[in-house]
Amino acid sequence: MTITDRTSTSTSRAPVVPLAPTALRPLGIDQVRLDDGFWGRRQVLNAAATIPHCLHWEGEAGWIANFDAVLEGTIAATRTGRQFADSDVYKLLEAMAWEIGRSADASLQHRFDEIVATIERVQGEDGYLSTCFGNPGQADRYTDFEWGHELYNAGHLIQAAVARLRTGFGRDDDLVRIALRAADHVCETFGTDGLQRVGGHPEIEVALVELYRATGEQRYLDQARVFLERRGHHTLADIEFGRAYFQDDVPVREAEVLRGHAVRALYLAAGGIDAALESGDDQLLAAVTAQYRRALARRTYITGGMGSHHQDEAFGADYELPADRAYCETCAGIGSIMVAWRLLLITGDLTYGDVIERTLYNVLATSVAEDGRAFFYTNTLHQRTAGHAASADRISPRALDIGRAAWFEVSCCPTNVARTLAQFGTYVATTSSDGVTLVQYASGDISATLGDGRDVRLRVTTDYPHEGRVRIEVLDAPTDAWELTIRIPGWADGATVDLGDGRGPRSAPAPAFTHSGVLRPGTVVQLDLPLTPRWAHPDPRVDAVRGCVAVERGPLVLCAESLDQVGAADVSRLVVDSSAPIRPMNGSGAVASGGLLDVGHAPLLYGPEPHVPTIEAAPIRLVPYHSWGNRGPSTMRVWLPAIGDLP
Amino acid sequence: MTITDRTSTSTSRAPVVPLAPTALRPLGIDQVRLDDGFWGRRQVLNAAATIPHCLHWEGEAGWIANFDAVLEGTIAATRTGRQFADSDVYKLLEAMAWEIGRSADASLQHRFDEIVATIERVQGEDGYLSTCFGNPGQADRYTDFEWGHELYNAGHLIQAAVARLRTGFGRDDDLVRIALRAADHVCETFGTDGLQRVGGHPEIEVALVELYRATGEQRYLDQARVFLERRGHHTLADIEFGRAYFQDDVPVREAEVLRGHAVRALYLAAGGIDAALESGDDQLLAAVTAQYRRALARRTYITGGMGSHHQDEAFGADYELPADRAYCETCAGIGSIMVAWRLLLITGDLTYGDVIERTLYNVLATSVAEDGRAFFYTNTLHQRTAGHAASADRISPRALDIGRAAWFEVSCCPTNVARTLAQFGTYVATTSSDGVTLVQYASGDISATLGDGRDVRLRVTTDYPHEGRVRIEVLDAPTDAWELTIRIPGWADGATVDLGDGRGPRSAPAPAFTHSGVLRPGTVVQLDLPLTPRWAHPDPRVDAVRGCVAVERGPLVLCAESLDQVGAADVSRLVVDSSAPIRPMNGSGAVASGGLLDVGHAPLLYGPEPHVPTIEAAPIRLVPYHSWGNRGPSTMRVWLPAIGDLP
Repeated sequence: MTITDRTSTSTSRAPVVPLAPTALRPLGIDQVRLDDGFWGRRQVLNAAATIPHCLHWEGEAGWIANFDAVLEGTIAATRTGRQFADSDVYKLLEAMAWEIGRSADASLQHRFDEIVATIERVQGEDGYLSTCFGNPGQADRYTDFEWGHELYNAGHLIQAAVARLRTGFGRDDDLVRIALRAADHVCETFGTDGLQRVGGHPEIEVALVELYRATGEQRYLDQARVFLERRGHHTLADIEFGRAYFQDDVPVREAEVLRGHAVRALYLAAGGIDAALESGDDQLLAAVTAQYRRALARRTYITGGMGSHHQDEAFGADYELPADRAYCETCAGIGSIMVAWRLLLITGDLTYGDVIERTLYNVLATSVAEDGRAFFYTNTLHQRTAGHAASADRISPRALDIGRAAWFEVSCCPTNVARTLAQFGTYVATTSSDGVTLVQYASGDISATLGDGRDVRLRVTTDYPHEGRVRIEVLDAPTDAWELTIRIPGWADGATVDLGDGRGPRSAPAPAFTHSGVLRPGTVVQLDLPLTPRWAHPDPRVDAVRGCVAVERGPLVLCAESLDQVGAADVSRLVVDSSAPIRPMNGSGAVASGGLLDVGHAPLLYGPEPHVPTIEAAPIRLVPYHSWGNRGPSTMRVWLPAIGDLP
Repeated sequence: MTITDRTSTSTSRAPVVPLAPTALRPLGIDQVRLDDGFWGRRQVLNAAATIPHCLHWEGEAGWIANFDAVLEGTIAATRTGRQFADSDVYKLLEAMAWEIGRSADASLQHRFDEIVATIERVQGEDGYLSTCFGNPGQADRYTDFEWGHELYNAGHLIQAAVARLRTGFGRDDDLVRIALRAADHVCETFGTDGLQRVGGHPEIEVALVELYRATGEQRYLDQARVFLERRGHHTLADIEFGRAYFQDDVPVREAEVLRGHAVRALYLAAGGIDAALESGDDQLLAAVTAQYRRALARRTYITGGMGSHHQDEAFGADYELPADRAYCETCAGIGSIMVAWRLLLITGDLTYGDVIERTLYNVLATSVAEDGRAFFYTNTLHQRTAGHAASADRISPRALDIGRAAWFEVSCCPTNVARTLAQFGTYVATTSSDGVTLVQYASGDISATLGDGRDVRLRVTTDYPHEGRVRIEVLDAPTDAWELTIRIPGWADGATVDLGDGRGPRSAPAPAFTHSGVLRPGTVVQLDLPLTPRWAHPDPRVDAVRGCVAVERGPLVLCAESLDQVGAADVSRLVVDSSAPIRPMNGSGAVASGGLLDVGHAPLLYGPEPHVPTIEAAPIRLVPYHSWGNRGPSTMRVWLPAIGDLP
């Protein structure tokens, strides 16, 4: 098979286009055109604000200039950023590549070409490419596998090139040529007879399988498998946080749960699933699936966020899910979406679509400020102090306790958000041999070619998640029977679908509604999802939120922000009555019955008798968690003490 | 006044001997001789095991050899340890100095002299002394105030010298000479006309006031005040954790609460209190007292531990006290004892004795393993995984999740424990103008000279905290009236004192029992403290332990360790019935009524209905928190979910 074959197939303008058979197949960004809905607006903002913002800051921070400095011979003295600064340039190029693929923006293409031209000149004869190692005055290449990030950087370079290959460009594209040379260099250096090492931060594995998929070249899949099998054999140092930090503690196929640095664990899981699928390694696929499912069942926040620790950016133990300083790195949320999407395609299990939806609305959408120009790196569930917002014109450390920041010293998240939003259309729907599955509800047009070659065109219209009605108009469809499947979220008790056939709405229980038959053009299928605010109760082993409840509404986790409370009360005073109903508010908010504690201060926090605080009745106003922190300093909490549970 | 005057006074063989008047006055280690009680045994173990252990590991780690390497000119290439490695040598010298003062151990004195002789040769002509800066091939001195720790190291050198001055040695002692030269160098370099900087880690402040007290030289007090006034004016960098990490965010006298790195905050508070007292600065004294009291009231664990964050070893926000990964650094516990002791002396408020007792039994005693050769750096309140114990023959990172370790890369805690235990006797009792106050109950002999010159000798006999009876025999006493005061802990509801006068026990409510009158030699005063196990309930704002209770018995916080539970059940399964009484067990343990949860696993941890777990009735066995982790890998928790509060 040739590259032209691959890139010309109708389903190829997407990441994660497996070559092996899967239950569901992805659509390309050219096949799903979002318009003015929740995600369509964010995609436009991404193009208009976030990508230019990232370009500005990568200039400001000097990370693009690092490549120029290599050419000028000044890099050893002038390099800025951490070892992985190159990767953020590549991740931005990936975002730009998807955006160019989506919108054909010529000025963006121009800027893309400029950056790529510089990078190409930095690349060595043998394909090695780094602004951090191997240049005059710098440490030698491959002398720091724990922290050097060379293979991580190469992985993101390759992912950017895959975005080009998936958006109509071929092997002659400048970035693709660079990435192929880099990938070949990696294969030559780290093959079975090469350096017996792995990189401290997984990413090369998933990138190499994606490159295999986009080029058909077996060596890239083989090299990904080499890295995967080599990890877990203690080739990395036993650092303060242990080798689990790098997932080098246990072989990938023997581990039982995701652990260590959350982004590393999730990128590795994505690569493990991809390599297992493409090589028919069912044991590896089952092992990584089980690790991810156990992490979902025991190590995941209600927002879909993953990672409990600030110190090592890592998963905690089972049930160790503090709301305080919940790390929930934005990149880990994106990593979880990557893994869940792969498992959804492979298995056809639409409950993975629920996981993706939870994480999209409550991690990805939370990270970005309303103006697209500031970001949460971590996504806490409990903000105790209303600190000063980060300055919009300076670089912040990676994790602040005080709100979104314009840019970070470790700025992996903004470009990760940007590349995900630019390719967002591909997460909306899938095809199968004889049908289309609507996975996320986003206004826009879907043009699908079924596995059997028949075409379907749909127009989705919805104000979801603010309204529960989703209108699916059939624009074009086969004249014979085909299958329309709609994911029904697990929370959507009472969902109905009206097929427009005069029979009225019929019950649509989770996880899916499927219609098999003829649906003529002009048919409007109407999904109604109940958006009644609802209580969420935690498993009793989640110690940090015992005696608390949260409120969800549709896919949104809600939160109490101090600005909305009676007297702008600090959220440490709030309690709710979880036996009372919750009233919906406009804008996806809600009002719960509850009150404000008045506790006073004793010399110590612990005493022989249960505290019996005075509670002054007050409505507790809740807003979507993703919207918090956009109106100035505030305190915020997702989990609310339930009055019945207070001593 | 001359140095001889000071060191010959009867109350001088102790740290913290204020020159300014205080409500209570300390006794020296020669005036309180502990014998075979809880603390006496630990003091013997400290001398027999912990101090030799520290000497071994400071040799093994190369920190003593660093001084030799300076002399050999090889330090730039061979130095080991962090910037503050010198301080751990000094802190060990301080421990040795107190131990020599206590036991006159000649072989210890010999080793002490050897180390001091090497150090003296390293000191520069101008008094500067460092193995980390300023030697050939190293960075210049005073080029890194954030992390260089030069003033911190100097502070611990001075403290070691103060221990010599307080144990019978004079200005001609080798270590004292070194420290005086170092202190003079600091005064000359950082005076009002000198470098306008402060060290990143407070310690020099408290050390300089202590040196002032031991020598009477005003310049040391003045310099301490210069450093105190200079802090909080942003001379240190705005690092990732903010300037609060260094307490450089707000001037010391303007701050409202302890914040940032907990050990730094507490050492600074101790220095602030000392300097305020000695200079009559009531405003500063009130400010620092209020900061500490607010930290006690809002930022302190039930164990007395302080510091919520692993990442920056810092205080959290008010009420942010996660049991998981509670940092509670051992050194912060010692810092809190230092502060509380100072406030107790100044104010005579014996409730500070309660704070000290809580911290001694539940932080200091917890840190050290039963064999005196392994240490907790952090003192978590909830251990979720029963990991492998740290190897006894390797150096661990500073903070492990898996038990005590023999030594740490950052090994501030073992030597801090050693110096505190070696001087422990000085925390047991105080004098006033006309009386003696028993602050801690420890078996041993107390020889006190009252402020008015009269002598009192007491023998205390008790198996406290395992028994509640404390026998105080008057060995020698004035023939006229004097005052015997006994601290009564806040928890000791029902305490009685029998004066041996035939009138039987009389009620002794907290915070103190005082007898004024004649007590003839031979009189036995008997204190009976109720050691009934009792429930402790948290303030409802401590979110992390909502719906939980803890059990205390006397001064001991108890915990549930998996090894003691039915079927060695993991502690994640335990619940207790807080409406039922707790049965005492031998060895200060207890048994609560409760059960084991059986919850099962759902795909996610959150659902629309409260979980109703099955609970199998089981006794919940509790042991003193300080004893946990001595019997091999286990899970452990202090806070136990109360059945009545489970949904």
